[in-house]
Amino acid sequence: MIDTGFRSIPVFPDDRFHEECAVFGIFGHPEASRMTYLGLYALQHRGQEGTGIATMNGRHLILRKAQALVSEFYTETILDDLKGNSSVGHNRYATAGGDSERDLQPLTAYFSDGPMALVHNGNLTNAVELRKELEREGALFATDVDSEVLVHLIARSKGSGLVERMEIALGAVKGSYSLLALFPDGLIGIRDPLGFRPLSIGRLGNAYVLASETCAFDLIGADFVRDVEPGEMVVINKEGLESHRLFSRRPGAPCVFELVYFSRPDSRVFGIPVYLARKKLGSRLAKDHPVEADLVVPVPDSGVAPALGFAERSGIPLDMGLIRNHYVGRTFIEPKQSIRHFGVKIKLNAVPGLLEGKRIVVVDDSIVRGTTSRKIISMLRGAGAKEVHMRIASAPIVSPCFYGIDTPTRGELIASTHKNEEIRRYVKADSLGYLSVEAMEEEIRQCRIPDGSGHPEGDGFCNACFTGHYPIPFSTEERIQHGLFDTLSPINPAADSFDHLDPED
Amino acid sequence: MIDTGFRSIPVFPDDRFHEECAVFGIFGHPEASRMTYLGLYALQHRGQEGTGIATMNGRHLILRKAQALVSEFYTETILDDLKGNSSVGHNRYATAGGDSERDLQPLTAYFSDGPMALVHNGNLTNAVELRKELEREGALFATDVDSEVLVHLIARSKGSGLVERMEIALGAVKGSYSLLALFPDGLIGIRDPLGFRPLSIGRLGNAYVLASETCAFDLIGADFVRDVEPGEMVVINKEGLESHRLFSRRPGAPCVFELVYFSRPDSRVFGIPVYLARKKLGSRLAKDHPVEADLVVPVPDSGVAPALGFAERSGIPLDMGLIRNHYVGRTFIEPKQSIRHFGVKIKLNAVPGLLEGKRIVVVDDSIVRGTTSRKIISMLRGAGAKEVHMRIASAPIVSPCFYGIDTPTRGELIASTHKNEEIRRYVKADSLGYLSVEAMEEEIRQCRIPDGSGHPEGDGFCNACFTGHYPIPFSTEERIQHGLFDTLSPINPAADSFDHLDPED
Amino acid sequence: MIDTGFRSIPVFPDDRFHEECAVFGIFGHPEASRMTYLGLYALQHRGQEGTGIATMNGRHLILRKAQALVSEFYTETILDDLKGNSSVGHNRYATAGGDSERDLQPLTAYFSDGPMALVHNGNLTNAVELRKELEREGALFATDVDSEVLVHLIARSKGSGLVERMEIALGAVKGSYSLLALFPDGLIGIRDPLGFRPLSIGRLGNAYVLASETCAFDLIGADFVRDVEPGEMVVINKEGLESHRLFSRRPGAPCVFELVYFSRPDSRVFGIPVYLARKKLGSRLAKDHPVEADLVVPVPDSGVAPALGFAERSGIPLDMGLIRNHYVGRTFIEPKQSIRHFGVKIKLNAVPGLLEGKRIVVVDDSIVRGTTSRKIISMLRGAGAKEVHMRIASAPIVSPCFYGIDTPTRGELIASTHKNEEIRRYVKADSLGYLSVEAMEEEIRQCRIPDGSGHPEGDGFCNACFTGHYPIPFSTEERIQHGLFDTLSPINPAADSFDHLDPED
Amino acid sequence: MIDTGFRSIPVFPDDRFHEECAVFGIFGHPEASRMTYLGLYALQHRGQEGTGIATMNGRHLILRKAQALVSEFYTETILDDLKGNSSVGHNRYATAGGDSERDLQPLTAYFSDGPMALVHNGNLTNAVELRKELEREGALFATDVDSEVLVHLIARSKGSGLVERMEIALGAVKGSYSLLALFPDGLIGIRDPLGFRPLSIGRLGNAYVLASETCAFDLIGADFVRDVEPGEMVVINKEGLESHRLFSRRPGAPCVFELVYFSRPDSRVFGIPVYLARKKLGSRLAKDHPVEADLVVPVPDSGVAPALGFAERSGIPLDMGLIRNHYVGRTFIEPKQSIRHFGVKIKLNAVPGLLEGKRIVVVDDSIVRGTTSRKIISMLRGAGAKEVHMRIASAPIVSPCFYGIDTPTRGELIASTHKNEEIRRYVKADSLGYLSVEAMEEEIRQCRIPDGSGHPEGDGFCNACFTGHYPIPFSTEERIQHGLFDTLSPINPAADSFDHLDPED
Repeated sequence: MIDTGFRSIPVFPDDRFHEECAVFGIFGHPEASRMTYLGLYALQHRGQEGTGIATMNGRHLILRKAQALVSEFYTETILDDLKGNSSVGHNRYATAGGDSERDLQPLTAYFSDGPMALVHNGNLTNAVELRKELEREGALFATDVDSEVLVHLIARSKGSGLVERMEIALGAVKGSYSLLALFPDGLIGIRDPLGFRPLSIGRLGNAYVLASETCAFDLIGADFVRDVEPGEMVVINKEGLESHRLFSRRPGAPCVFELVYFSRPDSRVFGIPVYLARKKLGSRLAKDHPVEADLVVPVPDSGVAPALGFAERSGIPLDMGLIRNHYVGRTFIEPKQSIRHFGVKIKLNAVPGLLEGKRIVVVDDSIVRGTTSRKIISMLRGAGAKEVHMRIASAPIVSPCFYGIDTPTRGELIASTHKNEEIRRYVKADSLGYLSVEAMEEEIRQCRIPDGSGHPEGDGFCNACFTGHYPIPFSTEERIQHGLFDTLSPINPAADSFDHLDPED
Repeated sequence: MIDTGFRSIPVFPDDRFHEECAVFGIFGHPEASRMTYLGLYALQHRGQEGTGIATMNGRHLILRKAQALVSEFYTETILDDLKGNSSVGHNRYATAGGDSERDLQPLTAYFSDGPMALVHNGNLTNAVELRKELEREGALFATDVDSEVLVHLIARSKGSGLVERMEIALGAVKGSYSLLALFPDGLIGIRDPLGFRPLSIGRLGNAYVLASETCAFDLIGADFVRDVEPGEMVVINKEGLESHRLFSRRPGAPCVFELVYFSRPDSRVFGIPVYLARKKLGSRLAKDHPVEADLVVPVPDSGVAPALGFAERSGIPLDMGLIRNHYVGRTFIEPKQSIRHFGVKIKLNAVPGLLEGKRIVVVDDSIVRGTTSRKIISMLRGAGAKEVHMRIASAPIVSPCFYGIDTPTRGELIASTHKNEEIRRYVKADSLGYLSVEAMEEEIRQCRIPDGSGHPEGDGFCNACFTGHYPIPFSTEERIQHGLFDTLSPINPAADSFDHLDPED
Repeated sequence: MIDTGFRSIPVFPDDRFHEECAVFGIFGHPEASRMTYLGLYALQHRGQEGTGIATMNGRHLILRKAQALVSEFYTETILDDLKGNSSVGHNRYATAGGDSERDLQPLTAYFSDGPMALVHNGNLTNAVELRKELEREGALFATDVDSEVLVHLIARSKGSGLVERMEIALGAVKGSYSLLALFPDGLIGIRDPLGFRPLSIGRLGNAYVLASETCAFDLIGADFVRDVEPGEMVVINKEGLESHRLFSRRPGAPCVFELVYFSRPDSRVFGIPVYLARKKLGSRLAKDHPVEADLVVPVPDSGVAPALGFAERSGIPLDMGLIRNHYVGRTFIEPKQSIRHFGVKIKLNAVPGLLEGKRIVVVDDSIVRGTTSRKIISMLRGAGAKEVHMRIASAPIVSPCFYGIDTPTRGELIASTHKNEEIRRYVKADSLGYLSVEAMEEEIRQCRIPDGSGHPEGDGFCNACFTGHYPIPFSTEERIQHGLFDTLSPINPAADSFDHLDPED
Repeated sequence: MIDTGFRSIPVFPDDRFHEECAVFGIFGHPEASRMTYLGLYALQHRGQEGTGIATMNGRHLILRKAQALVSEFYTETILDDLKGNSSVGHNRYATAGGDSERDLQPLTAYFSDGPMALVHNGNLTNAVELRKELEREGALFATDVDSEVLVHLIARSKGSGLVERMEIALGAVKGSYSLLALFPDGLIGIRDPLGFRPLSIGRLGNAYVLASETCAFDLIGADFVRDVEPGEMVVINKEGLESHRLFSRRPGAPCVFELVYFSRPDSRVFGIPVYLARKKLGSRLAKDHPVEADLVVPVPDSGVAPALGFAERSGIPLDMGLIRNHYVGRTFIEPKQSIRHFGVKIKLNAVPGLLEGKRIVVVDDSIVRGTTSRKIISMLRGAGAKEVHMRIASAPIVSPCFYGIDTPTRGELIASTHKNEEIRRYVKADSLGYLSVEAMEEEIRQCRIPDGSGHPEGDGFCNACFTGHYPIPFSTEERIQHGLFDTLSPINPAADSFDHLDPED
């Protein structure tokens, strides 16, 4: 093996799915930029690569953005510069197109009606076609971000009045969007017709607030009002909040993975308290995949809630056998000399003594490539575990997401090409249990809060990553573009080892 | 109320005790600076205000230090600059004297034998006197750090040979020190005669490693060998590791608070596995202060292990009812408009729905001023808790520490001036239970691992912060200097409110 | 006097006119970004507020820009990132609209033909109208820079082929532009029909180079080929350089101030060697405004060449009686306590002893507000000068520039509201002599190099700042916008003091 | 030739001698740090590698230093942090030992009398021996700077009272020092017995000021009082200024090179106005080395004054035929492709047209290695010069300086190993004329101002670099250390080319 010298390795790309964005907006508050800063602070988990805030000061737009964490970037000076009573903000997870500062949001532009700032959580599946068309009409693009087509469509829309204008602008768009647009005299919030990504309405004194998750309201002391409905546009201005239907009501497809992993456990998304849902998933796991064991050990932090559910239902005691280092930054400098389990040890360490001779049930929220699971199990065995049974509080991931989540290609998803038993052998567990999609959704549905406070989502979810059933039909062009025609290598059940997936370990 | 403008508020000073330092050293490893960087990464919890590494490259000393987190400061370029096969590193928590970059460690100096780099965890109680004396003799001081007197004492010591030299140098020093000194041809590690602060020996291939906690060994793949004994000096050089007794054996006084709060749960300090000890404390709490309740809720992260112990013994189910935001940086920009529970909400949020109508046992590791506990309880009640019973997995803190921990003055320690019932009323709990000092030590002692691997500490602990019994007698001058003659205001049991302690809330 | 605290004062706005930009472009060179960096280095005097380079790497555009000096911003890493064989670069002087990084050039955009990068030296006088029109058609603007309308006009132009396209795009534009646009397969350079600003063609091996001034060619070792003619577009691609007439030939109006002050003395602009022209102006000054004196003292650096001409013709010896500090940065921290002549002393100091008892002729290139001249004369008298005669190597400035120069409003131009004698009294000179416009132009014309190497400019110049005769008629709307209808306060010849202009001194 | 990739080349090391330091101090002024900042601004030419200021606030010392220019480093915040009524500051040119921030001055230390800050311009020739001795006595050194021995000597000195203390401390020191030391209740300034480096006293209101050069007084509006005499110590405190003789009066040896090149032309050093002295040198050059020519061209900026003197005496007209780019930073990124005369073109460019067919006298202040002269002459010929006659306004440099100037080794000094004719051939001049040492000193002496204002220096100078006669006898050990026994390679008069000295050109 060639010595390539020291390398700085990213801590993220950590074999988990990643949300691409958080959005936050506020209208009519004297400390708009500060409140947006706090909201983004609470939503940092949805994107750590970059952050930005735009405020509207009269008809003057002020923008500050940087490739940094919220806690690193914003200073009092920056927040003071961001004058004005209304504001939108964004946290971003890196996307394919490039990671330059230019591609951070809010996107801003000046058009005939004045300045506009836009933040977007989601992914437009026909962005490439739309952009080509717009360029043919003379549109200039400043970034590589798919969301920029939204800015152009809004600026060019010929509808009379804001509602018609948005109807026309968004009519051609396919995909997922929880979208905020800030104008000199109003803030609008829109969720796509299927409501893939969450977007909630809060109230802070006389001001209205929009945020990806309710935990942002808790930090600033805002009251949760309701969710923006799929297909709804809310317009917030001096008169208050007005609701418009941009698209007729139909069964929504909120992202089930928000509940499995993305959202903070103290949020309520799609009308469902996240922590409770996760505990339920763990509980069901104990029922569907029981095992004789001495100890339940969660993979922190996302495995803790399901592990508590598993422990409660199974009666097996729970211990925090894996400790997470919370001081980990965004990159890590790797030594030349290889260190066992290094990639996972950066974040996790097994508690010595505790696991010695025990039969362990290790509970995690999901498996993406399998590489991390394999390292965790190896670490647990290194710490003396006699048996390691892995339980996953969701179904096998078989397909990539095209609605706003950063996923590897299909070929990299271990469950896309391998059967359960093969995965078990790859991760070197004594047993492996996943939930079925049906079980997942059933448990989650039961957590829905049965009051009338703004969650008109139907019973369904988008579960494309678990099933390959995409709720929006693709055009042939899109299928090619997304590699959905690619035939994956046939599974080789004879192969004893899938070590090519992780040759180092 | 006067508008004081926006303020940037520190997240630390967060009503907890703070360790002042982590030390790490390695001798005879081709990647000494990288290993030290990794060790400091694992020890970040012991000091977040600054970090530094010095390496010895032949007879040339290289030093890099900055007021930053380990993950923020070190780059590949910096680690490449830090050439050499031996290294010492330090993480620092801010101390009284000043927080300038100048006062960060390692301290370095050139003296007649060449360069030396020194890192120190602890506190010298007679540093002021020693410094005055040294200055009278013509010594020049470059910093305000008490540890600098050690550098001078070592450089001036007339002993023949390293052992005698250190005996003489350290003979005059009072206080606590886990100390590493790096010379061109050796690395030494010393623990003070009472062994206040931990210091462990590890082995990585042919190299020896010294670290404040064993979790640093786990990350770099080193094997734990044993602890440095109180009063012992180990000398590591090309010949290997040699042990010397600088001070005769006597019953040690290792800091009990390391086990209660400071050390990482996956470390073993003073021969005791930390996580297990904390669980034991929680379990004992359930026995000594039982309560009828529906739910045990830990204050994360330090309350999790005792809460698990409490839940296990009491049979009351545990839920993660408080969620911690792990993206919190070192400062926080406060809005002008006051937000309820703001100070604690930065880090913690109650899970909505979960606590509604429930009787809660909230478990924390300690109470310092009481302000945070009060905010947490208020937040739990705001989330619907019907009753809140607070259980503390240690004894009431009544006295400041002079052995390396950053503590407020005696007057600020709520338990120093208030009885249990008064504290309960101040924090607004329905009931409040502490462990007794005896119970704490009894439980911890039971966790000690009964093998012979280097933990010659006796049964005793330094429990001065819980008892006011300082294991080293103070001179009258020191008592004055440390304010130990101050009479605290008499307790006023009639006072219905101690709100002066936290007027904002 | 009110204590206003310490202030950071800009060194620029220094009572001189400022060029707004330098442009540089290269096509077909393996080190395109380095050559552009060097070119911008040589052209730093044309703009110190910000700099940027864009390179074309295949069809991929790379951009780096910052508010910094060329010598501060570019590093090897940045230049390595700027891959590709063609490049455009820009230096910028701050303009009114804002000084944010966003407004720096090159401007870049993606349109139907791919990416484009544009750099512009000049000013479009009808930019506001054009922008409104474009916005009405759905165009989005990303900056406040007038040059952005050029990007839109080019992208939207319906002409067939590049030449027709540019003809249409630039047909509607009024004002001055020396313009470079970089596309994946070509670089174009255009000078407006009147050729206000310079733009020269050079050759470096097989590559063509375009630059604002010839001194950029000297640094990179390129050979001067010829100037781009007014109204000409040159297209550089793999086939070489092709010339197109976008606008029919007519008498040009090159900016006479380029020769008086902006351009570097070692450049040749509009076919005229700058150093020689400046010496000629000084010589003419000696003829038209002779004076009995002991010493000619230039105001460095711009006064040196005319002072040499003055000394030569008058026979009065020249001495460098004012020394310039060349380490002055872009801002300066002023003390609270007032210091005599502070504003000018930052840059200039009188040589002690030299001026004692002497009659001095101080030679400068121009007077804008008069404040600096007044301070210089006061400083010379403070150094012992018996008489101070001021000679200005250009005509009185009476009108602002709208063609790419940063000038104060008309009311701030001392010669716009004051007669010669009044100015003399304000600056406190013993005598004051300006050149007439006719004399200036006559002298400059005589320097024109009579060979055929590409300077088809006619005999005329734009002298609007000296005469108020603007070569492009304004629309009424533009006149209002530019304040050209404002009546200036009547001159008060009785006033003994114009100290309101500079109350501090 | 091997392609080594792009390189960042320093602009300094530019074949000139470099002063190592500027010092500035002030006592008893409410804006001490601002005044020091301004003083250092004016003294930037004496050192561009780093700068630092220390202020005394009561008994508390505050220090800020950085590797940066004065104009880059100091901000209002930094100057506000530097509280106190007294201050010392330093600019530094890089020295051999290392260029780290640690080695910047002011040096600070705490000793028995409290804090002290020290700044030093000069060089201690027996620093190595002194340091060894001090280390043997237990002294700790924090830097590699020779000046640190002064700090120790002062702290250890047993003398009673400050004067005796300093007498003892400095008694053992050999070499050059213009030295300021700041204590809580006083500022002292000392010049070594021979007065190698300048140090002047100024008065600003009630405060006293000390500075390397008088140009610093001019900027802050201070009045020049007199020079500190060789061997004198001035003590400034609340009582005013007191003078003490540390060493008895003897003929001084002020550095003649201060007048030739280092000092600013608007300063008066050693009682001699610098600009006038330089003009005199040029005039004498015209007398001693006359030549028939058409044009005198100075190498800017240091050649301008002597060129004026040359032109005046010879009657040959002067033109600024070489233009200097004043925007050059501290490093420069070189292209891979070689560019003719690149090294010199960064800074200088010939004015095109002006030199065509002319016989040129090019005037510079000195020749060090000859490489730059050769490039300048080649550039002049490239610009069309028919003949180039080089005139140097000082004597040939044959020996290195050990008194505070950064000089190359003897072997690199072209005049140390080559005769005049050989140098002429190497630089490719048509003729070459130097001044003799006697002529230089004679001219300079004539400029001395014959009043009584504090310049007790005798008639002599240190001219060691021109003669090899060092005014302080070396010990054998020092001679070895400084390479003064090395025999230089014999001159090879037959060699037609010395191109090995500059193979690239």
